[in-house]
This record gives sequence, C-alpha cells and structure tokens, in this order.
Amino acid sequence: MADRIAFIGVGTMGGPMARNLVNKGFPVTAFDLNESALDQAVEYGAERATTAAEAAKSADIAITMLPNSPHEEAAVLGAEGVFAGLQAGKILIEMSTIDPVVTKKLGEQATARGIKMIDAPVSGSSVGAMDGTLTMMVGGDADVFRRCRPVLQAMGSNVIHVGPLGTGETVKLVNNMLAGIGVAATAEAVNIAQRAGLDPRAMFDVISKSSGDSWAFRNRLPVSGVNPAGVPADDDYAPGFMTMLMLKDMDLGIGLARSVGAPSLLASIAAQYYASACAKGVDRKDFSAVVEAVKSLNAD
Amino acid sequence: MADRIAFIGVGTMGGPMARNLVNKGFPVTAFDLNESALDQAVEYGAERATTAAEAAKSADIAITMLPNSPHEEAAVLGAEGVFAGLQAGKILIEMSTIDPVVTKKLGEQATARGIKMIDAPVSGSSVGAMDGTLTMMVGGDADVFRRCRPVLQAMGSNVIHVGPLGTGETVKLVNNMLAGIGVAATAEAVNIAQRAGLDPRAMFDVISKSSGDSWAFRNRLPVSGVNPAGVPADDDYAPGFMTMLMLKDMDLGIGLARSVGAPSLLASIAAQYYASACAKGVDRKDFSAVVEAVKSLNAD
Amino acid sequence: MADRIAFIGVGTMGGPMARNLVNKGFPVTAFDLNESALDQAVEYGAERATTAAEAAKSADIAITMLPNSPHEEAAVLGAEGVFAGLQAGKILIEMSTIDPVVTKKLGEQATARGIKMIDAPVSGSSVGAMDGTLTMMVGGDADVFRRCRPVLQAMGSNVIHVGPLGTGETVKLVNNMLAGIGVAATAEAVNIAQRAGLDPRAMFDVISKSSGDSWAFRNRLPVSGVNPAGVPADDDYAPGFMTMLMLKDMDLGIGLARSVGAPSLLASIAAQYYASACAKGVDRKDFSAVVEAVKSLNAD
Amino acid sequence: MADRIAFIGVGTMGGPMARNLVNKGFPVTAFDLNESALDQAVEYGAERATTAAEAAKSADIAITMLPNSPHEEAAVLGAEGVFAGLQAGKILIEMSTIDPVVTKKLGEQATARGIKMIDAPVSGSSVGAMDGTLTMMVGGDADVFRRCRPVLQAMGSNVIHVGPLGTGETVKLVNNMLAGIGVAATAEAVNIAQRAGLDPRAMFDVISKSSGDSWAFRNRLPVSGVNPAGVPADDDYAPGFMTMLMLKDMDLGIGLARSVGAPSLLASIAAQYYASACAKGVDRKDFSAVVEAVKSLNAD
Repeated sequence: MADRIAFIGVGTMGGPMARNLVNKGFPVTAFDLNESALDQAVEYGAERATTAAEAAKSADIAITMLPNSPHEEAAVLGAEGVFAGLQAGKILIEMSTIDPVVTKKLGEQATARGIKMIDAPVSGSSVGAMDGTLTMMVGGDADVFRRCRPVLQAMGSNVIHVGPLGTGETVKLVNNMLAGIGVAATAEAVNIAQRAGLDPRAMFDVISKSSGDSWAFRNRLPVSGVNPAGVPADDDYAPGFMTMLMLKDMDLGIGLARSVGAPSLLASIAAQYYASACAKGVDRKDFSAVVEAVKSLNAD
Repeated sequence: MADRIAFIGVGTMGGPMARNLVNKGFPVTAFDLNESALDQAVEYGAERATTAAEAAKSADIAITMLPNSPHEEAAVLGAEGVFAGLQAGKILIEMSTIDPVVTKKLGEQATARGIKMIDAPVSGSSVGAMDGTLTMMVGGDADVFRRCRPVLQAMGSNVIHVGPLGTGETVKLVNNMLAGIGVAATAEAVNIAQRAGLDPRAMFDVISKSSGDSWAFRNRLPVSGVNPAGVPADDDYAPGFMTMLMLKDMDLGIGLARSVGAPSLLASIAAQYYASACAKGVDRKDFSAVVEAVKSLNAD
Repeated sequence: MADRIAFIGVGTMGGPMARNLVNKGFPVTAFDLNESALDQAVEYGAERATTAAEAAKSADIAITMLPNSPHEEAAVLGAEGVFAGLQAGKILIEMSTIDPVVTKKLGEQATARGIKMIDAPVSGSSVGAMDGTLTMMVGGDADVFRRCRPVLQAMGSNVIHVGPLGTGETVKLVNNMLAGIGVAATAEAVNIAQRAGLDPRAMFDVISKSSGDSWAFRNRLPVSGVNPAGVPADDDYAPGFMTMLMLKDMDLGIGLARSVGAPSLLASIAAQYYASACAKGVDRKDFSAVVEAVKSLNAD
Repeated sequence: MADRIAFIGVGTMGGPMARNLVNKGFPVTAFDLNESALDQAVEYGAERATTAAEAAKSADIAITMLPNSPHEEAAVLGAEGVFAGLQAGKILIEMSTIDPVVTKKLGEQATARGIKMIDAPVSGSSVGAMDGTLTMMVGGDADVFRRCRPVLQAMGSNVIHVGPLGTGETVKLVNNMLAGIGVAATAEAVNIAQRAGLDPRAMFDVISKSSGDSWAFRNRLPVSGVNPAGVPADDDYAPGFMTMLMLKDMDLGIGLARSVGAPSLLASIAAQYYASACAKGVDRKDFSAVVEAVKSLNAD
C-alpha cells in the first residue's frame, strides 16, 4: 500500500510536487501557512491539516519544501512542527534548500526521537516541478534512501544518492554557486562583447563550442533572439529561477564556505551583482537579469 | 600553386603550426628571435630567414604567432619587421592573441601600405597545434578570409569567420575570460565541496549534469582520478594551457573591458587568483593549478 | 537618587562597563547566561539576577551588552527577557552592536509596551571599557537621550547623539566598515611595500603625513617596532579588537548595505580576508592580524 | 652659483614647478612636446629647447615630470632624449610617477653613462605645485640626494629621503593605493549611510573622531556642505586630483604588487570603481567623484 505523505509547504515548487504525488496515488495531507496555497492543494486532492504536526501525525513520510533555514527550523522543531506529530520509525525528507548546518541539527533531533531523515533538495524550475522532471540530490542512509525512492521518483526524473545526511544540501549549494557565478560571468563577458561590437550570433556559435562554454552561457545568455533553443531573455526574463532565489543560494553557499574554512571571493562578488540586480527591481525575474547590475557600471 | 608563407614565431604553438603547413605542401620561410626554435623549424623543412622582413619579402601570406602585443608590434612595424618586407597586395594573418586595439592599429598601417590583413587567434593547446585541430576565430574582410581559408585549414579543424578585423581577437578574449573565470570558480567551489566532505565522484556526476556544468568544470576539475575522460590534475597539472598564459589573457580581457567602458569585476578577482598562483610557482602548469591560490586562503 | 540599572551581558565589554556604574554609585542588578561572568559582576558589587526579566523588574534603566542580533532578540523579547520584567515608562538602552533592523523591531515592541528605548553602541576596546573612555553613538528621542546621559557618561567619555532610534547602530556599522576596510587595505599595501624592500620606518613617516594616512594605518600597522605610539603587532597582535568581532561587524555592515539597496564590494572583499584570517586561527587576535590572510596569497 | 636645470614636461604639474625654480633664481631650460605648455614656460622666464637632449646638454640637473612610464622612457632613452644630451657626472631627477621597474631600468642606463640619478615623485595637487608645498619622496644615493636638496626644496616643502633608487616611486604608489582604496571605501560607506537616512553632519562628526577616520574620509567626503574645511564635492568635484590619474596610479600599484608576488584584491576592486567612474565621464573631476560608480549599483 502506498505510503501516507505529509507535505509541508505547497507553494510554487511544493504545490505541483504534492500534486504529482496525489496523481500517482499517494494519500497526501498538506499544510502551509499560506491559506490560498493550501486551498489549491485541497482542490487537486490533498487533505488539509491545520498544523505541520497534525499533517505529520498519521504520515509514513513527512516532506518539507520551504523557502529557507528559519522556516525549516520552525516547521520541523516548532511547538506545532513536524517532530511534534511524526512518530518514531517514520521518515522526514527535507527538500527545502537550506544551510547544511541546520540540516545536521535537524538530523540530530530526528535521531534522538527515533525518526529517520534524508535531505533531498531539488534542482529545476516550477515547470520541472509540474512535469515531474526535477533533479534530486539525496543525502542520508542508503537504506532510508531506497525506502524513499518511489516517492522521490514520483516527483523527479533524476534521483541521485550522493552521500550521508547533509550532502544533498551541500552538493546543491556547490552546484548553484557555480551556476550563479557562471551566469554573472556570462553577463559580464557578453556585455563586453556587445560594447565591443561583436555580432551576438557569431559569438554564441564560437563560444558555445569552445572553452568558454557552460550551462550558464547556453541557457542564460542575456541576449534575446540568439540561442535557437530559447532563453529567459527572449521572454523579458520571465523565470526560470528568480534572481532573489539565486541571491539566497549564493548567501547559503558563502556561508557554507565560511563554515568549512574556505574562501569564496568570486561568489562574494557575484552575490553583490545579484543583490544590486534585486535592488533594481528584477528580484522576481530570471536570474540572468543580473545583467542589469553589470550594465549599471557601463559608460553612460 | 601553393601560397608562399612567411611564418614569424615558431615556438611552442607556432612551431607545430608551421610544420603542418610544410607537411601539407606550403613553402614556408620561418623567423624567430629564438635561434633554437628556428633551428627546429629548419629541421622539419622550413627555410631560415634572418629577419621578419626578409621572411616576408617573397611571401604571399605572412603569419605572426607571438606571445603578446609588444612582440607583435615590434615584429610587424619594426625596422626589420614584416611590413618592411611584405609587398602591397599581399596578406598578413595575425594569429597571436593580443590587444584588439593593437590589431586595429596594425590594420590601419596595413591599409596605408596596400596590404590586406585578417586576425585569426587560435584556441587549443600545443597538442591541438600538432594535430592540426585548433579552433580559429577570424576577423576581417570576407574575401580575404576566403582567400586564406586553405592555409588556415591546414592548421586547424574549426575555422570560423566572426566579423570585421579585430573581432577574432575580441571573441577569443571574451571566450578566454569566461574560461578563466570558469576554472577559477570551479577551483573555488570544488575546494568548498572537498572541505565539506563531499565525495568527488558523486559531486562530479551530479554537477556535470546540472546548472553548474561547464567546459571548465568537466575539463579542468582540480581533482585527480574523478573525470574518466582525464584532466590535467591527473598528471600533476601538466599543461594544457599554462597559468601564465591565462593570466595574460585575463589581463587582455580586462583591458578590453576598460577600452569599451564595461566592468570586469569577476575577471579582476579571477586575475588575482591566477597572479597569486603564478607567484607560487605554477605559472608553467596548467591553469587549473589556480586551485593552489584558492587553497592558500583555507584554514591551515 | 541614582537610577537603578539592570545590566544584561557582563562579559569582556559589559563587565567593566557595569563595574564603572557600580563605582559611580549606581545600584546595578546583573544578568548573564555565563555563570562565571555573573560571579565576577557580583564580586565587584552588582546584585545577581537569575533572568533578564528579574533584573529588569525593579530597574529604571535596562542596558543590554550582548554579542549579536539573535542574543539581543532573545534577551529582550524572550519569555524571561527584559520586556517580561521592565515596567512601562522605564528605559531600555541597547548597547550591543547589532543589525539596525532588529533595533527597529525592538523599538516597535517597546513602544507597544510604553517602554522608552535608545540605541547606544560603543566604540573602543575592553581597555576603554575599564577606563570609562568609550565612545557612544546614540540613536533615539532627544529627551530620552538627555535622561540617560549621566548613565552613559559613567561608562564613556565621548557620548554623541546622532539621530532617531537605530542611527546609533547605523553610524557604528558605517564607521566599523571603514575601519575594517582600512585595516585590510593597510595590510595589503604594507605587505606590498615590505616585499618591495621599503624600509618600514621611512614608509611610516611618509604615509602617516600623506593622503594614505588613516586611523587604521597609524593604529593598526601590521609591523612591529615602527610606530613609536605602539600597535597590536608589537605585542603579537594581542587585542585590541578581535578579528572575529570585526568579521561580525563587516557582516552586519554588508547586511545593512543590502537592506538599503546599496553595494558593498570593498566590504565584501575585506570580509573574505577577515574570514580567512579567522579560519587560520587569529580569530581572537587583534584584527590587524588580517595580514595573515593577505600574506597567504604571496609567492611562497 | 645656482645649478642649471633642464625641465622636461612643463604641463599642469611641471609648469608651476619650473616656475618656482625660475623665481628662486635657477636658470631653467624647458622642453615639452606640447607647444603651448612650452610657450607658457618661456613667458615666466624659462629658456626654450627643441628637444629633451638639447635642454639637457648644458644642464647640471635634468628633471622629468611626465604622465606615465612610456613617456618617461621615450623622453630619457629616446634618440633625442635626456641621455642623448646630459653629460657624465650630471644628475637626472625623475619626478614623474611611473612603474618602479622602469625607474630601475633608467638607473642602470644612467650608471652605464656615468650619470647620477634619483627618483623624487611628488604628492600634492597643482595648487601645491604653484605654492611650492609639494611632498617629495626621494629614492637614491644619500650624497646625490643632499646635492639635489636645494633644488627640490625650491619646489616642495616636505622633502623626504626614503631609501635607494626606486623607493621614492614605491612609497608613492603604496601611499596612493591607500588613498585610492580609502576614497573608494569612503564613497561606498557614505552611500550606505545616506541611504540609511543618517544625518551627514552627525556622521562626519562621529567618524572623523573614530576608527573609521582617514585622510580620505576628511578630505574627500563625497557630500557637499559637511566638512567645514571644504572638500571637492563642495565645488562639483573640481580637482584636486583627477579620477583618471588615480586610476593610473591604482594600475601602477597593482602592477607593483604583481611584480613582487603580492595580492592586491582591494586595489583591484577599487580600480574597477575608478574605471567605471572614468567611463561615466568624471575622469577629469576629482577622484572623490568615484561615488558616481558606487551609486550606479544602488536601487533605482
């Protein structure tokens, strides 16, 4: 019989993920502080809970999909949080992208309660969440991972076990730092090329086959009408992945670097570009709109 | 009948390129300030000239492959330089990677002398030069480009016309800035991942399929034994492309940015990493050895 | 009759400050989570409280002197915090250096309770705390400021009213960003000078009278035996002001910049230097020990 | 009898310096590539030469005051340069601010010709040049320094011997890096303060007496009407010292750092701010106009 799921956080990402679980036959009880998000979840077949604890009470697996570390801590450890409801022997899957230090703290609390826990942050946009094509980077005990795999595969097409608890978050942040620096570097370099009078199509054809190539260059080129496969710049920077979320992930990555005694000079400069772009009003546009901050330093 | 070639600069890159021309039936006259490089060129069939002017005198096409802008200026405009020998109606192909401002200056002098000129800097290592698999980014008049194509194709497998004179250099520098920032970012991110205890193979498998992926990440991972396709780190950072050359290209790129009134914050920080790596003695190692500079800032 | 004082946080800074109040005849009730700090306060004449609320109950003025924003929030708003004890009409003086956003939040809560509040973060070392020579930058209503001035002057020799609530914290952070960048810049420049073979004394004499001069250059020169007035480098970087505290203040300053939509590029790079220095083990040395991070990037 | 002076470079700085020499009784022969600058020098009493060599022929002491390294090299080593005229036993005083590597090269050529040489770059504006109140940082043999002191003191009020040849340039560049970072940091911090609503006068009063104080903060505050002593911002950023010259000095300083194997991260970021400010059109304004680049990254 299918596992009973408690789904905490049914917003832009969590909503369609929960829907996929419902559609694939999992009984889902949902909770969200946002009433209208919760209403929507009920519409497509989830049961409504009034607290995270209530949702977790009868669940085999509780899933959290929340914006950042403080929300995660509150939703799991709070008086009406997941751990106030979830029974010993059951499982928590942390799918929020948060500080791995918090993940470890939750893991210790889980162990103390006899609860099993894995972290499985996702990569991919809200479209990927709807299509069930997210990538999931999973940290935790191999047995627990195997146990959860069918649930994860109901929401994502690429589910990878990368190591013990916390490594899912870590690899996610390292990946996103690279994506964030890559997109900012692309904006910086393409801005130079444009001001130097380079034909954008010729530039794209050359660099996408050379050592300057990257996911960022191909998928987040800040010029419209050039990459035949399409980029957010073609559509006035409709996300995709929002600038404010990339800024959040850069901050988490810089914090991770500091917690392990490593430098993050390039990430710090990239974060300054993203922060300036957010301040300039493209916080809810795709993160390739960071080019706005780059261009502000140009000659008038 | 095959064009007569004057080849100025037959060192690590120019040497094997000239050899490929000889092997494909072009008569080549070589010149180099370095006697032993010139001796080697003679050994594989080039004729020896005692000055660039002498080499150019009877040439249809003169090719320069020199380290940087001042060498190029001296070798072309100097009293015994190419323009002192090359006849009106003949062609100069600038294959050195240099400041596009100098390229334009040489172009004006060429025009004044009735000489035709294209720029065709190359991408690829000395192995690519030997194998004839270099990529060439060509700027200049389309007719002159067509006229030179057979000569270029004798040295490279990917010859692309990108626009008017100077655009070859420009797209090369923009590409190499992206590669340089990309490799430095990879070093920064992978150092964090390692200190956070991530399994390098799992990290490689995930990120090389995600938004953090890039040429730099796959081809210049600063960890040995991970990418099955092999990277310089597997071989103690044998180049590949030397750190000192990447530093030179970053400097040229930063200069280009300034000349067009654009910022290059990320490139400036990456250049600081490369300069520190050079100072620490890996100037002649592959540029992925920039990880040495990153690690110097780690906790002891 | 002298105001009754509740003093929350009697550590390295708060301890000697509270002692000065006792010595000048103020009745002080102290609280600290650290028992031994509290024991010491009792020894020099403070009364012991078992919670912040208890200390505040009979106080005219409650003072907080705590490490950072979360401690401040907990100590003021917590179930056993200051606001659980302090009566309407009484005053809270926030002397901790924290995020001005938190200051404003506490200010709103204070107003809702009829409590008056000013912020008065201090500048100066633990020696200044002992000598009563601290500088205090005070934000808040002018009347409340005047009311508190005698208490502040018992702990500091330079008490300045700078504007409404929160401006004390703001000017403190702006000042410390400048000090932090200044000391890191001094370390960077002096390291260059030393490697270039400049005599440190000649350099000091010239620059301390020229446009490169600053508080940082004169008081935090990272070379021993040069400034006749003495610097922490003369004494193996004994603080002074600890590197870890400067890192905290840089982080707060960068956060402030972001909250007002302003860039902080130089502060971000300086913060990276301080973080690396902390990672290398000089976190409890004077912040001029940041030169350790600078030197790590030198040629070996 | 007074030394005969050859003065090469009588522009914004060199012009008034040569005039001071004339006024104090030194016979001066001047040369400049700019005819109108030379005309002006003749007007206030200098003799006209048609080349640097001609000016130097009968001189006891030749002085160069030129924009940058290439001009200095040409004016000294060129076919019609100083060394083509100056006799053995005579003296060259290099007062231009240039790359110390070039200074050493000229020094070697001087020695080979039996010419004595010191470097004596100046600190101070064109007003200081007129008033004869420049600071001069002198490198070279102590005997030659003593011999030249009366000439230097005719142009400056603060003449300091700092070490062997080249150390004048080195200490000048280190000083100006500190001034350049200091002014950029001031712009960054004051921009934050203003956006946070701080009263500029209160900020000035507090910080100018605290650890954030510096020559830069007091003399280059990018706010008008605040410092009673006056700053360029009061007068629409009339120089003072031009942004383009500070950018040149930052570049020289970054080059010096690289040549001695030292990092210059903060200087690199400051140089990016100055380059952006120049691109935005304040290249000939005082360098405190760098605040224009800082503000471009603000929220709109």
